Amino acid sequence: MSDLKSKFLEVYSVLKSELLNDPAFEFTDDSRQRVERMLDYNVPGGKLNRGLSVVDSYKLLKQGKELTAEETFLACSLGWCIEWLQAYFLVLDDIMDKSHTRRGQPCWFRLPKVGMIAVNDGILLRNHISRILKNHFKGTPYYVDLVDLFNEVEFQTAHGQMIDLITTLVGEKDLSKYSLSLHRRIVQYKTAYYSFYLPVACALLMSGENLDNHVDVKNVLVEMGTYFQVQDDYLDCFGDPEVIGKIGTDIEDFKCSWLVVKALELCNEEQKKTLYENYGKEDPACVAKIKELYNTLKLQDTYLEYESKSYEKITKSIEAQPSKEVQAVLKSFLAKIYKRQK
Amino acid sequence: MSDLKSKFLEVYSVLKSELLNDPAFEFTDDSRQRVERMLDYNVPGGKLNRGLSVVDSYKLLKQGKELTAEETFLACSLGWCIEWLQAYFLVLDDIMDKSHTRRGQPCWFRLPKVGMIAVNDGILLRNHISRILKNHFKGTPYYVDLVDLFNEVEFQTAHGQMIDLITTLVGEKDLSKYSLSLHRRIVQYKTAYYSFYLPVACALLMSGENLDNHVDVKNVLVEMGTYFQVQDDYLDCFGDPEVIGKIGTDIEDFKCSWLVVKALELCNEEQKKTLYENYGKEDPACVAKIKELYNTLKLQDTYLEYESKSYEKITKSIEAQPSKEVQAVLKSFLAKIYKRQK
Repeated sequence: MSDLKSKFLEVYSVLKSELLNDPAFEFTDDSRQRVERMLDYNVPGGKLNRGLSVVDSYKLLKQGKELTAEETFLACSLGWCIEWLQAYFLVLDDIMDKSHTRRGQPCWFRLPKVGMIAVNDGILLRNHISRILKNHFKGTPYYVDLVDLFNEVEFQTAHGQMIDLITTLVGEKDLSKYSLSLHRRIVQYKTAYYSFYLPVACALLMSGENLDNHVDVKNVLVEMGTYFQVQDDYLDCFGDPEVIGKIGTDIEDFKCSWLVVKALELCNEEQKKTLYENYGKEDPACVAKIKELYNTLKLQDTYLEYESKSYEKITKSIEAQPSKEVQAVLKSFLAKIYKRQK
Repeated sequence: MSDLKSKFLEVYSVLKSELLNDPAFEFTDDSRQRVERMLDYNVPGGKLNRGLSVVDSYKLLKQGKELTAEETFLACSLGWCIEWLQAYFLVLDDIMDKSHTRRGQPCWFRLPKVGMIAVNDGILLRNHISRILKNHFKGTPYYVDLVDLFNEVEFQTAHGQMIDLITTLVGEKDLSKYSLSLHRRIVQYKTAYYSFYLPVACALLMSGENLDNHVDVKNVLVEMGTYFQVQDDYLDCFGDPEVIGKIGTDIEDFKCSWLVVKALELCNEEQKKTLYENYGKEDPACVAKIKELYNTLKLQDTYLEYESKSYEKITKSIEAQPSKEVQAVLKSFLAKIYKRQK
């Protein structure tokens, strides 16, 4: 494990212990243990990319200067706030999607003594963020901006989730609603703001920057987030299950994937009929017909073209940034995702 | 309808329209209509006591001076934030409790096109509060305190809900966990902070007060909230269904009611057996046995004694308040709840 990652995990223990002894609530041993179990199950088990990228970004903004212990702790804490936010979304999304597994284990709400209490656990996770921010950032000149930032990004993510939910409403499977602009809206709001913009925005605030002066940074990161999700959609169908660690089911699940949207754009009337008749069905024969159509339409080539055009556009936007440090942050993000296979 | 109430409802329309045109999200007509329907269904349909009491309290703090249009609007907005918070809790509580009706109509999640999307709607409601606060209070000297206040009260309410949920966990019906101190903890955290303390705290902040100087006010209001809930528990069993507008089911639902807690305290070994054998059962014969025992134990008298002692204690605490205006606010709260029949 890298030094950064083990430091990061150390900070998790500190934050957790503060939350479990928060004077705003009189814990009993029982309730304290329950919250601890809930946190350990849901918060630290992911890849931690979002959280770690706050620390990486902050370092780059500091031109690689060694961080003080205090700075490292604060940057890690903000990173954890994003991981907490992610845990909050995932716990609740899994309930709404009736999912079974997450990160290789049963979804939290599937555990025998949890069930619908998981809804309240989601709320607790959201509230922990406010407590962490208050405990460690109240008194800094950017405290209000941080709180507003987390609120705004949560607002956007919840709206992204809403449009995703209402377009895939069971009983209303209707491909005619799917379009590139709907795909972009879902991705931008549901994923890009909190996964790409939020970590960098946290690092910028810690560096004393005013986010109003960095609207371009937001736009580039949202663009990268979209690019990332298109890759995800592509890999769900064409990636190697051994490499990506799961078997994609976007076709069966009637997902508004970039692939189906492109297929709708490129198909003739007969192919459209195939799409309408086979998309969103569990039957492997239907899935196979969709994949065959994707091949006929040469979606792999369309994807490669999208990938290089998008890369070019993002690179240009990055180079238009006035600050070299900001450029370095954005380039490091791009390098992590370009041509990824998983 | 009173002038205040119609003014209050006017402000709802303004706030709603701002939220439906929030620049942080690109609404389509579809998504805008859906959020509007969700708000109209869940936010304004209650008694609005909590919201209106912000305006009442603020007026009393201003010694009855006429409020400016701006002040009225702001006080109403804070009142609505509390109503939004309430709606958020109720939408999610109904899911967790598997309830069927609320305010005389089906619970939101029971509607055909809603279902588990209601979880996300709950999140939207929570996020609306942050947006209302930002739109109208950012720039006031008390903005941060307001945001912190709502966060802290939400944190406490979620923890209250958690202990309520884990003590009434299905399959773990165990009367031996019930005690007066557990009852107090649930009531204090789940209800008293947001229903009693929060409205007054909002009014105090708007008046330029520092909440750190009003810890006593918090304590008195939490006391009143507890008193209010004990009344609720009492009326659930002994109130007139015609007057309270519902048929109580606390006994069937195995609720940690003040009555069962008192019964456990006062009963002999044989009566305890009756409690353990009949509490939390749907069977009307079991319910009747519990009610009979409550009568044998003279719980109605115990309640009347509690009521007068509690009233006396609260009145004393109110009179110990240094500020006459604060006294007036607290007295007006107490007058609304003392000896209520519904």
